[in-house]
Amino acid sequence: MKKLINAPETVLAESLDGFASAHADIVRLGEERKFVRRTLLKPGKPAIVSGGGSGHEPLHAGFVGFGMLDAACPGQVFTSPTPDQMIAAVAEVDTGGGALFIVKNYEGDVMNFEMAAEMAGSEIMTVITDDDVAVERSTWSTGRRGVAGTMIVEKIVGAAAEAGMPLAELKVLGDRVNAQTRSMGVALTSCIVPAAGTPTFTLAEDEMEMGVGIHGEPGRRRVKLEPASQIADEMVAAIASELPGTGDAILLVNGFGGTPSMELYLMFNAARQAIEKHGIRVGRALVGSYVTSLEMAGCSITVSMLDDEVARFWDAPVHTAALRWGM
Amino acid sequence: MKKLINAPETVLAESLDGFASAHADIVRLGEERKFVRRTLLKPGKPAIVSGGGSGHEPLHAGFVGFGMLDAACPGQVFTSPTPDQMIAAVAEVDTGGGALFIVKNYEGDVMNFEMAAEMAGSEIMTVITDDDVAVERSTWSTGRRGVAGTMIVEKIVGAAAEAGMPLAELKVLGDRVNAQTRSMGVALTSCIVPAAGTPTFTLAEDEMEMGVGIHGEPGRRRVKLEPASQIADEMVAAIASELPGTGDAILLVNGFGGTPSMELYLMFNAARQAIEKHGIRVGRALVGSYVTSLEMAGCSITVSMLDDEVARFWDAPVHTAALRWGM
Repeated sequence: MKKLINAPETVLAESLDGFASAHADIVRLGEERKFVRRTLLKPGKPAIVSGGGSGHEPLHAGFVGFGMLDAACPGQVFTSPTPDQMIAAVAEVDTGGGALFIVKNYEGDVMNFEMAAEMAGSEIMTVITDDDVAVERSTWSTGRRGVAGTMIVEKIVGAAAEAGMPLAELKVLGDRVNAQTRSMGVALTSCIVPAAGTPTFTLAEDEMEMGVGIHGEPGRRRVKLEPASQIADEMVAAIASELPGTGDAILLVNGFGGTPSMELYLMFNAARQAIEKHGIRVGRALVGSYVTSLEMAGCSITVSMLDDEVARFWDAPVHTAALRWGM
Repeated sequence: MKKLINAPETVLAESLDGFASAHADIVRLGEERKFVRRTLLKPGKPAIVSGGGSGHEPLHAGFVGFGMLDAACPGQVFTSPTPDQMIAAVAEVDTGGGALFIVKNYEGDVMNFEMAAEMAGSEIMTVITDDDVAVERSTWSTGRRGVAGTMIVEKIVGAAAEAGMPLAELKVLGDRVNAQTRSMGVALTSCIVPAAGTPTFTLAEDEMEMGVGIHGEPGRRRVKLEPASQIADEMVAAIASELPGTGDAILLVNGFGGTPSMELYLMFNAARQAIEKHGIRVGRALVGSYVTSLEMAGCSITVSMLDDEVARFWDAPVHTAALRWGM
């Protein structure tokens, strides 16, 4: 295992310390590093709280800040955070408006966030994201997995909360955005979880995993590596068949951590051509490594349908470590 | 070779098309894709023009936009752009204030930018960056190599140009920032240049290349993998010994393309502790993959000394694909 670390046991703590120190203008760490919170809270605004296993950075801590999340709870690598983390986060960031949990659809996460919602002393509602069209169920999920589309839900709901939308409406909006957001991924290599020390899965030198999950879970099929345009066509076809109709959309090409920018923009070019064939126009674009799987090579494509309300919230100012515009 | 591409010959063109399409609000492509230019030019402002071999993205095209570069000329992967690219770029973006070339110190780049400066019909001055302390000369450079510190020079000079500084003063400022900016890198794996199809170099499973260049050029020594803190201590000691004195600095921890965010923040944490021992305080922080070597695993550390003028230009608004704040 070749990694820039000191010891597998301290990776998460040292990384969080570095993150909080590098972005001290935006975030600070909760007690015992249970959560990353926004430094400045807005009294009365519903708190937007997310979290999940680490290893997907910048998701979620990189999205804490003005216009997006109030707190993120990092679990160990690819492991759900525990309920006490979310309870501690809510106690600190709920300023009277209640809290909305945004949870990727994995059994451990759903269970732990649910337990926290019951035990926390706040009004809490939950949006569960399940944007991955690759498989109907998987290693760690009943139903579809929540993947890169989660960051789009976080952005839209975060902006709406900043604009004054109350908790119950945020829940409806979050569910609506999730329903019109669909993703699919492909892996060329596996990643290595520090505590494991060996690759999560293995692929031959000429193979790829089509429909891979963000923890290296199996996808639809393991096939021979194809040209980028063919990969994009296949992924976009699977996504488009699950989307309601045509129109404008956000197109997100997301790197899994080990894929260079040059390949991501090439994939964006291919994906843009592919979705236009399905009558969908790229209204907004985002290309980068936002929802990763440590150093896995590969990418996902996400298409999220736009309407006037969603476009306005997408364009609204955001000031986080990983996404910043308009301020 | 596992890459998300269609064919090695079309990687650069397709990637540039995707980049221009994803960031159509900021940039557009020059004729025959000779350069990436800022959409909106500021009449009379000296044009800041950079470029170099591709494969280091987001450097340089990702830094084209308000407050940074007016144009970037992309060569083939790890290959200097040709003089006609810079000549075409200058012809389009010089609006009367002349042009400042920012060139990383590699023989091919220096020669081609020099030729372009002689042949272009504009007043042109050049800043050559050579911030890498690892080696005194290398495969493709006489003298030190220009690496990640280049983006800091581009940011500072770009902001100064935006604020109305004339060409001759920009040249002085750029040289000064370069002189107070020092970097060093470490590689854990090689990258594969698409046209070559095989790794640029090989490292055993327990080895790293200390002082590596951004094209995989050899560094100071090939050694056994060490804990992150020890790596950071060694790199920071080499950097600090070449810096003038103590004080506040920008600390940039830059990923080479295949290193996850989690490791970069852990390295930032280690590097911050290390430079404080040398009497340097982290006044500004930046962590991310900004000056890469395709999918190479590893990172570089850059320390750039701050004074009031430099801090003001660093903090000034910037609106590019890869760096955006204050607007």
